[in-house]
Amino acid sequence: MKTVSENACFGGVQGVYSHASTACACDMTFGLFLPKEAKAGPVPVLWYLSGLTCTHENAMTKAGAQAWAAREGIALVFPDTSPRGEDVADDEAYDLGKGAGFYVNATEAPWAPHYRMWDYVAEELPALIGRDFAVDLERQSITGHSMGGHGALTLAMALPGRYRSVSAFAPICNPSGADWGRKQLTAYLGADEAAWARHDASKVMRETGFDGPVLVDVGTKDQFIDLLRPETLAQAVAERRQQAELRLQPGYDHSYFFVSSFMEDHVSFHAEALEA
Amino acid sequence: MKTVSENACFGGVQGVYSHASTACACDMTFGLFLPKEAKAGPVPVLWYLSGLTCTHENAMTKAGAQAWAAREGIALVFPDTSPRGEDVADDEAYDLGKGAGFYVNATEAPWAPHYRMWDYVAEELPALIGRDFAVDLERQSITGHSMGGHGALTLAMALPGRYRSVSAFAPICNPSGADWGRKQLTAYLGADEAAWARHDASKVMRETGFDGPVLVDVGTKDQFIDLLRPETLAQAVAERRQQAELRLQPGYDHSYFFVSSFMEDHVSFHAEALEA
Repeated sequence: MKTVSENACFGGVQGVYSHASTACACDMTFGLFLPKEAKAGPVPVLWYLSGLTCTHENAMTKAGAQAWAAREGIALVFPDTSPRGEDVADDEAYDLGKGAGFYVNATEAPWAPHYRMWDYVAEELPALIGRDFAVDLERQSITGHSMGGHGALTLAMALPGRYRSVSAFAPICNPSGADWGRKQLTAYLGADEAAWARHDASKVMRETGFDGPVLVDVGTKDQFIDLLRPETLAQAVAERRQQAELRLQPGYDHSYFFVSSFMEDHVSFHAEALEA
Repeated sequence: MKTVSENACFGGVQGVYSHASTACACDMTFGLFLPKEAKAGPVPVLWYLSGLTCTHENAMTKAGAQAWAAREGIALVFPDTSPRGEDVADDEAYDLGKGAGFYVNATEAPWAPHYRMWDYVAEELPALIGRDFAVDLERQSITGHSMGGHGALTLAMALPGRYRSVSAFAPICNPSGADWGRKQLTAYLGADEAAWARHDASKVMRETGFDGPVLVDVGTKDQFIDLLRPETLAQAVAERRQQAELRLQPGYDHSYFFVSSFMEDHVSFHAEALEA
């Protein structure tokens, strides 16, 4: 593993690291914030999965999460959103290929050899940070924005016992039913929708739910809200009787100004679960 | 005045606006955060002047200031750092010309017609926001980073009664004595150093000081600390018996990870002065 940068930040360290990824068969870069408590021993971990077009860097510089993670003594992991490199397949569209991995393991050409963001986030990267940094893998939670909210919800529900809590900012809630989803799941997983099921948060919520608390924020003025379809998740949560808080925030859009506005709430929500 | 964007943010609005500037003889763009209290009436204003290479946008997205300004009910203004446009003189170097206005009124060719950032920040922009937004010009304070810290300190000391408090993150403290300063002051103001005096925070501190509290943070690992010369400002503050707090923050560098780490302290510091 290579250290790209380390900056003092809120008493801790905001690092950026790169490594050869087995899951994605390419070099990958991620951000990791360690609070000062990590000098004394392993700290709980909150994963932040980013949205379309993002790298590891966007949330790390714009979400304001370190302030609250430092207060709570929690580490933050900021993975990239897709495999990277010249030999990795891409598409001209902003919402397919690089920057748009959708947190799935692709089975279809030309995506299959590298686009394995599910395994990367669920298996490879946790093992790596657990080996090299003072993080406690027994205390993990997960959040994300937009495509990353989709990733957070689907990973959390698919891996019972892994994450103590899950939250999302303006998540893609029903990719099987919207243009942010159908196109990508078809490309990465093929036309047979049976293979998509585990990647649709609303469907998984209806079928299995999550064994812990759920917090979701969506802005009422989100310019992409018709693509996110929060109504399908809201319905599924209610049908499931899932322990959850769904909030429609008046006037907020899809930007990081929205994300940062509610980051304190989300970090506090996860801290409560992680410290229990 | 044209609205470029408005995003809901911490209960208020983060706006970006552009206008034809008389001082700079070009179109200028600035960011303005208004807390929710501005809906009821004028609120105090904290100016944030940015550093080299920045536009109005950097601090607006990376400094995390809105969280604390919202808590205190204070507006934030984020001016650009130089005139802009195709007919505005520029230089290949990152530290001269566009993005490097140094908060002076240039007198030398080719800079003189547009590079009048002192007048823009001291006169034109306050009048404009006072006219069009719910801000209380009787309650202003000022801060900034690096070149913007230099601007904040020199403006505050030159305009007694204008700002109730001044702070800076890693300011250029002694531009007459360092490569971040001599080059630019020579280009913009000419070789006669007498014209530079009002733009050297350490010199002005020694001669006139500031009629209010001063807060300055500098990281001990700031990679540009030899260009900033905080030691000259520290000496001047002590000689002047200026009410001030100078903090050398262990391990921090020059980045926005440093700025954001101490933003809460700075906004609280200004809030105390603004609400008195």
